[in-house]
Amino acid sequence: MTVTSKHATLLTPGPIETDDDVLLSMGHPSESHVGPSFARVFGETLTMLRRMLQTSNPDSQPFILAGSGTLGFDQVAANLLEPGDRALVLNCGYWGDAFAECLRIYRIEVDELQAPTVGSQPPVSDIERMLRATKYKAITITHTDTSTGVLSDVKSIAALVHTVSPDTLIIVDGVCSIGCEDLRFDEWQLDIVLGASQKALGAPAGLSIVMASSLAMQIFQQRQTPPGAYYASWKRWVPVMCSYESEPSPKYFATPPCHLIRALHVSLTKILSTSWEERLQQHEVASSKVKDAVADLGLEQICVEPSSQAHSMTAFWLPSGLRSENVLPFLARKGVILARGPQKEIAGQYIRFAHMGISATDSRRTDVDKGISALKEVLTDLRLG
Amino acid sequence: MTVTSKHATLLTPGPIETDDDVLLSMGHPSESHVGPSFARVFGETLTMLRRMLQTSNPDSQPFILAGSGTLGFDQVAANLLEPGDRALVLNCGYWGDAFAECLRIYRIEVDELQAPTVGSQPPVSDIERMLRATKYKAITITHTDTSTGVLSDVKSIAALVHTVSPDTLIIVDGVCSIGCEDLRFDEWQLDIVLGASQKALGAPAGLSIVMASSLAMQIFQQRQTPPGAYYASWKRWVPVMCSYESEPSPKYFATPPCHLIRALHVSLTKILSTSWEERLQQHEVASSKVKDAVADLGLEQICVEPSSQAHSMTAFWLPSGLRSENVLPFLARKGVILARGPQKEIAGQYIRFAHMGISATDSRRTDVDKGISALKEVLTDLRLG
Repeated sequence: MTVTSKHATLLTPGPIETDDDVLLSMGHPSESHVGPSFARVFGETLTMLRRMLQTSNPDSQPFILAGSGTLGFDQVAANLLEPGDRALVLNCGYWGDAFAECLRIYRIEVDELQAPTVGSQPPVSDIERMLRATKYKAITITHTDTSTGVLSDVKSIAALVHTVSPDTLIIVDGVCSIGCEDLRFDEWQLDIVLGASQKALGAPAGLSIVMASSLAMQIFQQRQTPPGAYYASWKRWVPVMCSYESEPSPKYFATPPCHLIRALHVSLTKILSTSWEERLQQHEVASSKVKDAVADLGLEQICVEPSSQAHSMTAFWLPSGLRSENVLPFLARKGVILARGPQKEIAGQYIRFAHMGISATDSRRTDVDKGISALKEVLTDLRLG
Repeated sequence: MTVTSKHATLLTPGPIETDDDVLLSMGHPSESHVGPSFARVFGETLTMLRRMLQTSNPDSQPFILAGSGTLGFDQVAANLLEPGDRALVLNCGYWGDAFAECLRIYRIEVDELQAPTVGSQPPVSDIERMLRATKYKAITITHTDTSTGVLSDVKSIAALVHTVSPDTLIIVDGVCSIGCEDLRFDEWQLDIVLGASQKALGAPAGLSIVMASSLAMQIFQQRQTPPGAYYASWKRWVPVMCSYESEPSPKYFATPPCHLIRALHVSLTKILSTSWEERLQQHEVASSKVKDAVADLGLEQICVEPSSQAHSMTAFWLPSGLRSENVLPFLARKGVILARGPQKEIAGQYIRFAHMGISATDSRRTDVDKGISALKEVLTDLRLG
């Protein structure tokens, strides 16, 4: 018997279904956050994060902090950028809005390039025009905007930036893409990828995850003003993270969340035990299955362009007359939890169905099939009823 | 069998020994952070936090965020205070330094009143003089400075502030005192108490906990400038916390750490099932036992004044010639984990022995006795050796 043997199937875009071994790892007795046992676990977790993000540059710097993924925005705004710096935010929805708002709080000058419609993304020609017109210290890209399931082409955008504005730092919000979309830190020459523990990384919520490039760390070291936050200050965290990864005795700033880090350690160990190509393919298969089912039901995705559709989740319009707050409880009664969507203009009119992590990769699980069946049954009942 | 049946006894000032039921609660399957089941748990946890801090004013506002306790400093600096505000920091050591540094990052004008020596606290006459000389928006008090075990007399200092400078907001760092020292939010008219999950609250590390008074919330609502942080912004979190506590459908800002909040729910439920007086007395008994044993060993506490000694932990000088990095491994071999101390001037020369949470309150446990025995044996061996 496992503690998780009986429960509704969670197919929301974070938190996601979590492996029993990951959950049970949190039953570990409390331990000293500076003792050798936890130090080894935290160090290995930081090192695995490098592999997860495909960076082999020893000067890349991983950070794992107690916090929600959103704390990653503050980390960027408070450490990498300085008041008065200019940033270009590529805005595909809710999370683009959020990143822009965060940067402005730290007195960054923000230009937003809005996607022309909900479910689309800013045209490459517009990005190029903006980059040629203004010198930006940084550009932010939401890899998958979890609000609508729009997937940005980070590889192409990064290549464009390197050609047109090579000094501009490339910052990727990978909260809903790390671990389920192709994302190559070194090869694409990214400067920041930020994430969270509770999506395709397969651990519980509560960890803010950041990878900074060698260049990003140089820019940080050379900043003229002190970091704009205390708890999120890399000045404080860099020696701590380095010590856990490479020294026998860890340094201290604030107490790390030992249990969550143990959980992430178990999850990353499992994830990294299969090939990256296989994992991507598993997510593509699960994604296609859900997207095909949605099409079979005569429903349209919020993101209509197939090449811009995330592989981690599917966001789709409900049949006219139905609202998410009415549909979701019927799904819950069938033991399937899907999610409403936070995108303001269309809130209530759509639903999000996630298919990432073990729900996509563990062939013994039937989560996705169960979700599809429940969706079909509920929509059929509601249409007839 | 429990998952925690066999392990070294953890007597560090956070994390502490954690109840099996608290640990096992984190084996709960992943769930939607906006679903009814977790919403109830989070709401009840917020409500229990009110009881824990002895506030019955419905306009007091609790916050529970993913983060270390240190994030509470940022919450105060970014929300309650504004750039240019003046604050008086009562500084008894490492954590006073930290609070002052945090406030300065947010451009608060900080005066520090330093304790005259390590292990002491600023004289009340000096506090009064400072309060009369300058109009401070806020005063910060580290209830127990975990670096040295100095306990501040929050009740008396608060009374002094109310008499001498009634407009000054009273901010208490209760990270190492909530749940183990007398701390009365309403009765003493405190404005902020901040804490963390991994000390006497008995849950794993990873939650930043704040209680703000009705007055503090009014001051926050009236601020002229926007909050100085994004993730820590009360503008974002107030509607979320309110919705979890009192509405059927929770609002969203950033994903709460469901598993840690479940753990805190279990721990608070247990803590609140016994009387507050009994709990305090249990901590006093455990504290006296350790302090007596330390005296029996011919050792002195860092804090010499008995009325200023914390009941949650004991920090004491090692015999001359011995350093913590040499002593602690011998204790670990006997299955007892005590802690080095972070206070710079005396680092290496002292050790911290915590006696809070279930190690003090659960009469079936022998943690404190085990710690005392191991300490006696190791020091005897090292003195002879």
